[in-house]
Amino acid sequence: MVIYLARDVLSRPIDRSADTSDLILAVQSLSTEEQSLLFERMNLNGDRIYSGATAFLKRQYRTIAWMTIVAAGLLAVLLLFYGANEEKGIEAGDLAWRTGVSFLVGAFLSALSGVIGMLIAVRTNVRTASAATRSLGDALTIALRGGAVSGILIVGLSLLGVFGLFWAFGGFENPKHTPELIVGFGFGASFVALFAQLGGGIYTKAADVGADLVGKVEAGLPEDDPRNPAVIADLVGDNVGDCAGRGADLFESTAAESIGAMILGVAIFKATGENDVAWILFPLVVRAFGAIASIVGLLVIRPGRVRNAQRALDVGYWTTAVLSTVGMAIAARVMLTSWWFFLAGLIGIITSVIFVYITQYYTGFHRPVRDIAEASRTGAATNIISGLAVGFENTAIPVVVISVALGTSFQVGIQAFNDLGITVGDSQWIAGVFGTAVATMGMLMSAAYILAMDTFGPIADNAGGVTEMSEAPGDVRDITDGLDAVGNTTKALTKGYAIASAALAAFLLFSAYLETAGLKEVNLAKVEVFIGAMLGGMLVFLFSSLAIRAVGRSAQAMILEVRRQWREEPGILEGKVEPDYARAVDISTRSALREMIAPGLLAVLLPVAVGLILRAEAEAAMLMVGTIVGVLLATVMNNAGGAWDNAKKYIEAGHLRDADGNAIGKGTDEHAASVVGDTVGDPFKDTAGPSLHVLVKLLSTITLVLAPVFI
Amino acid sequence: MVIYLARDVLSRPIDRSADTSDLILAVQSLSTEEQSLLFERMNLNGDRIYSGATAFLKRQYRTIAWMTIVAAGLLAVLLLFYGANEEKGIEAGDLAWRTGVSFLVGAFLSALSGVIGMLIAVRTNVRTASAATRSLGDALTIALRGGAVSGILIVGLSLLGVFGLFWAFGGFENPKHTPELIVGFGFGASFVALFAQLGGGIYTKAADVGADLVGKVEAGLPEDDPRNPAVIADLVGDNVGDCAGRGADLFESTAAESIGAMILGVAIFKATGENDVAWILFPLVVRAFGAIASIVGLLVIRPGRVRNAQRALDVGYWTTAVLSTVGMAIAARVMLTSWWFFLAGLIGIITSVIFVYITQYYTGFHRPVRDIAEASRTGAATNIISGLAVGFENTAIPVVVISVALGTSFQVGIQAFNDLGITVGDSQWIAGVFGTAVATMGMLMSAAYILAMDTFGPIADNAGGVTEMSEAPGDVRDITDGLDAVGNTTKALTKGYAIASAALAAFLLFSAYLETAGLKEVNLAKVEVFIGAMLGGMLVFLFSSLAIRAVGRSAQAMILEVRRQWREEPGILEGKVEPDYARAVDISTRSALREMIAPGLLAVLLPVAVGLILRAEAEAAMLMVGTIVGVLLATVMNNAGGAWDNAKKYIEAGHLRDADGNAIGKGTDEHAASVVGDTVGDPFKDTAGPSLHVLVKLLSTITLVLAPVFI
Repeated sequence: MVIYLARDVLSRPIDRSADTSDLILAVQSLSTEEQSLLFERMNLNGDRIYSGATAFLKRQYRTIAWMTIVAAGLLAVLLLFYGANEEKGIEAGDLAWRTGVSFLVGAFLSALSGVIGMLIAVRTNVRTASAATRSLGDALTIALRGGAVSGILIVGLSLLGVFGLFWAFGGFENPKHTPELIVGFGFGASFVALFAQLGGGIYTKAADVGADLVGKVEAGLPEDDPRNPAVIADLVGDNVGDCAGRGADLFESTAAESIGAMILGVAIFKATGENDVAWILFPLVVRAFGAIASIVGLLVIRPGRVRNAQRALDVGYWTTAVLSTVGMAIAARVMLTSWWFFLAGLIGIITSVIFVYITQYYTGFHRPVRDIAEASRTGAATNIISGLAVGFENTAIPVVVISVALGTSFQVGIQAFNDLGITVGDSQWIAGVFGTAVATMGMLMSAAYILAMDTFGPIADNAGGVTEMSEAPGDVRDITDGLDAVGNTTKALTKGYAIASAALAAFLLFSAYLETAGLKEVNLAKVEVFIGAMLGGMLVFLFSSLAIRAVGRSAQAMILEVRRQWREEPGILEGKVEPDYARAVDISTRSALREMIAPGLLAVLLPVAVGLILRAEAEAAMLMVGTIVGVLLATVMNNAGGAWDNAKKYIEAGHLRDADGNAIGKGTDEHAASVVGDTVGDPFKDTAGPSLHVLVKLLSTITLVLAPVFI
Repeated sequence: MVIYLARDVLSRPIDRSADTSDLILAVQSLSTEEQSLLFERMNLNGDRIYSGATAFLKRQYRTIAWMTIVAAGLLAVLLLFYGANEEKGIEAGDLAWRTGVSFLVGAFLSALSGVIGMLIAVRTNVRTASAATRSLGDALTIALRGGAVSGILIVGLSLLGVFGLFWAFGGFENPKHTPELIVGFGFGASFVALFAQLGGGIYTKAADVGADLVGKVEAGLPEDDPRNPAVIADLVGDNVGDCAGRGADLFESTAAESIGAMILGVAIFKATGENDVAWILFPLVVRAFGAIASIVGLLVIRPGRVRNAQRALDVGYWTTAVLSTVGMAIAARVMLTSWWFFLAGLIGIITSVIFVYITQYYTGFHRPVRDIAEASRTGAATNIISGLAVGFENTAIPVVVISVALGTSFQVGIQAFNDLGITVGDSQWIAGVFGTAVATMGMLMSAAYILAMDTFGPIADNAGGVTEMSEAPGDVRDITDGLDAVGNTTKALTKGYAIASAALAAFLLFSAYLETAGLKEVNLAKVEVFIGAMLGGMLVFLFSSLAIRAVGRSAQAMILEVRRQWREEPGILEGKVEPDYARAVDISTRSALREMIAPGLLAVLLPVAVGLILRAEAEAAMLMVGTIVGVLLATVMNNAGGAWDNAKKYIEAGHLRDADGNAIGKGTDEHAASVVGDTVGDPFKDTAGPSLHVLVKLLSTITLVLAPVFI
């Protein structure tokens, strides 16, 4: 499927001038020579982005590879010394090498899916731009299929990796401990995701903020102007942040959450005594159904029928949701023999649908965005205050929805086991947690579709950049602008989905940790546990601070470089000499890779230190409170950032009116105020917020893997 | 003492022109007539502030009184139905009326200390202004003594109230349940504090932001210009926010924390079997020593010896700290017969000293503030990003310091009981918690001194306003400006102190709740407990959002009123007609009182709802995680707000320089950017942040009081 889609996308010729009959109006009126010049320019700009992206990928993954190897070694050594557990019959050496290998496999597959997905994305952008000379449907389909390569690859490789390790480590012969032996896979994936998201997030906003501050504000250039040396870095940045970063984020989500559910499955497997591996493999089967549903949802969208891009994506999403429901019903009934589990899964599917609409409400032109736009009337300060108030407020509904989903799926889980007459452990706790696990799996079924929409975002954005830089006729740009706007929504939506699934899965992952560490409780009334909890909350704030500062410093480096190029070669600003795009890309790359180290190390080392000094229960509190605070703060930053961005767009679209009813648009004080808000929101929504998703999950996997050491 | 200080302050004549010999230079050179005109103007402006403040107080406390009576009734009814506890021998009717009465007494004394303290403060400001015509020492002493009335009154009434109820409810005959019967006192105090701080916080920033946006930005008037109709409301606001609000905050802190410690004392009292009420009364005795130490510290500062205001306050503070240490040593040795308890208390005293210096670092002209000022070079957006990053980062050291203080005092507590050979309960848990309680008491010993410095802030600020509006000579204004700058530091410092004591006390109050509710654990691994925890975190963000929005709406009302006055009476702006100050005060008052209802109700009702639906253990998790998140977010908002404010002052003081080394001061783009940051910080540091202090403690007292209902 992936290969089919990738070949489908890559086989599209960029030069479509051969048959002019279906070119859109303005391009038709160009002479054949002008047409081929246009496509030549598109190709050139596409190549620039491609080589910028590969340069970044090469250097980033080289850095990550080294760190991964060191981490794998340290991990194996730690487990070799402390990992033995006679009670469970786990031998230290065995645990150490298997965890080390799982870690490396997880890291490798996460990196691989990120790299391939991104290479396809940066080849798709120029093809989308070219397709936009023909029709909206064409452009949308190509961009979405390019995104689908990423989506399906990520979900597929995570599924294959978990299943492959389970099988290779003898899961079918002796399933009891196998999931605990492969938790390293999740940690490896999180480890890579942390640095991929941090590095990508810093890179993208350093380039974006740098390009904007020096280009738009200082020199008065429009967006994506080719005279701005940072413009290619900015376009590359959209890919490395949204595509590679979020891809790695969801790769580890699906992996870690499957493994967590499998660990619970083992507890049930043991309790039933019937040697039925269905309990352990159920999560993987459900997700396979989800992947199929997503593929169908993606293929439902056909170029000829597209009138409205957002509607087309909605149809695909609903198709995926309905098919996921059917798949869940089959898996629950056949494998687990109870409709109650289907109900639990349905709760997860419904939660994911609700979150899609919550995000649309927050980031669409509704009350929150309008409030911020209105506040821009009294200046930048009130715009910022209003945006922060909106961001803070926006934690309420998601928390309530997640609470309801958790509570009900927990009860449904208990009901299911009562129904089946199975008792697990001395309380109904594991039964309830398994209910939440099924709900989490239900939520993750549409992951491939959501990821395809997410990667669609930077592809559409880049297509717009290529169109602009290649001086294509206005109506081509209109098409890519439309796709870009839809892409902004889908990017915001993926963040909402990622954080909601993280929150829902958090309880499952805690439970897996408690199960692995043999803890019966996490008692906040103990002083060291309370301290662990406080440090968990603090970690989230400190990590965010480091991520935000990293953007500031990297943007500064970019600004200095752009100023240097303009000063040393005045011809650039006159449009006579081409700027040195590669050097700007290089500056961003170096700076982002340097700056990702400090927050990355903090995220890895503080949990390890707390676990070693305050031990397993305090670690659990750190994990739980860190997760709660992380989910809250990520929601604040993602939604405030998205709302600021759209408040600016709301004003640019002329919706804000003065006393006489005239539109207040670009160039006004109100617009300037909204630009300040948008700039503040950038590192929030594209660096710190998404990095917190990964931090939250890293906390889970790191504690799961090192549980034997913390006991 | 209070009466002595109040009479001392109020007896100072405002008209000091009779003997010109010690007037400062510029005033001496005025003719006698000019001098008496100056003092007449001062008197007039002082009266305006006084009547604005009393108008607000009257209306605010009338509203609060009604709500308090309703709340007391509901509380009594709830306890009447659910409060019985046969095991402990508590009868529902008895509990209901005693809690209701304690609630009313706590509410009344909190309100009383707030009102008297503030009435003295708004009489002291004009006397400080007048004293500034003589010498720095004179002005400082009067302002500080005016503040001392508040500080000593608050600490004294809280002490008297707790002791009086303990005695009246038969604490000496049957001490076992008395502390549980008087927890209502703490809740009453928190209830009033919540609305006092919210109402005051909204009022002060609505007036401030409103006055600035319309006065400085739109009309280009300087600060405190008499042509601005909002100027009196702004000066009144400083009092109602910092003086009445923070006073109520610390009144409930000291009350609730004493009661919490007494509840633990009861557990020890029961365990020793020696009928020694020393364990129960120890917190009150320590605080009495602290009050004496503070009084001595305040009296050490004598007009003649003052050269530098900050240094004088430092000397007083260190005197208080040293005397507190002596008092703690005596109390620990004589009452509890172990030096280990002295060590625990010393940890608390040291923690309070450390926090004073941490706050000075964050809000002084050090790296954090310099970073923000530097970021202003690239505009408002980078200023804001940098400020938020600083705010996020600033959670780290406080959390670490509190963790260390908690951990060590817990260990010391265990050591102390081992040393005495006393075993409480089946674990050493209560022993350790008592250690943290002693540390908390140690920290709170300097409360009266800190409060005096806090109230000093608005008095100095107001004195500056009176001086400006009365057109006093420049060197008088220099003195009040100097005091105002010191006042900004002391205000920030009180916030740091308040939040640190809240964090340190949090563990103690949780423990008192667990003791009262008969809970042995707070197990986050239970789904309803985890949901309670998530809701606790969410409450903090939602509450902050409501508080911030309230400021926005109230400021808007103020802006419209000022514009209306200028439009309808153009003579105001020309300085010919006096604006209608009273109406602006009235608008602020109404608006603040209306806007405080929503966040206030949320803060009271959500914990009650969680307790009733999810029960006692989930409530405990809500309390704990709400406290952790509240402490973190309050620290972020207080410190970011303070740092933004001082980054502006840093630029105004000419410390930021351009490439040629010239100072970049007022009127530049950099300064404008820093003003945006300052405005954003205003509702953070003066409304939402301080209100979170109260929220955190309200969570503790509400759960303590309603514990019987939640079981």
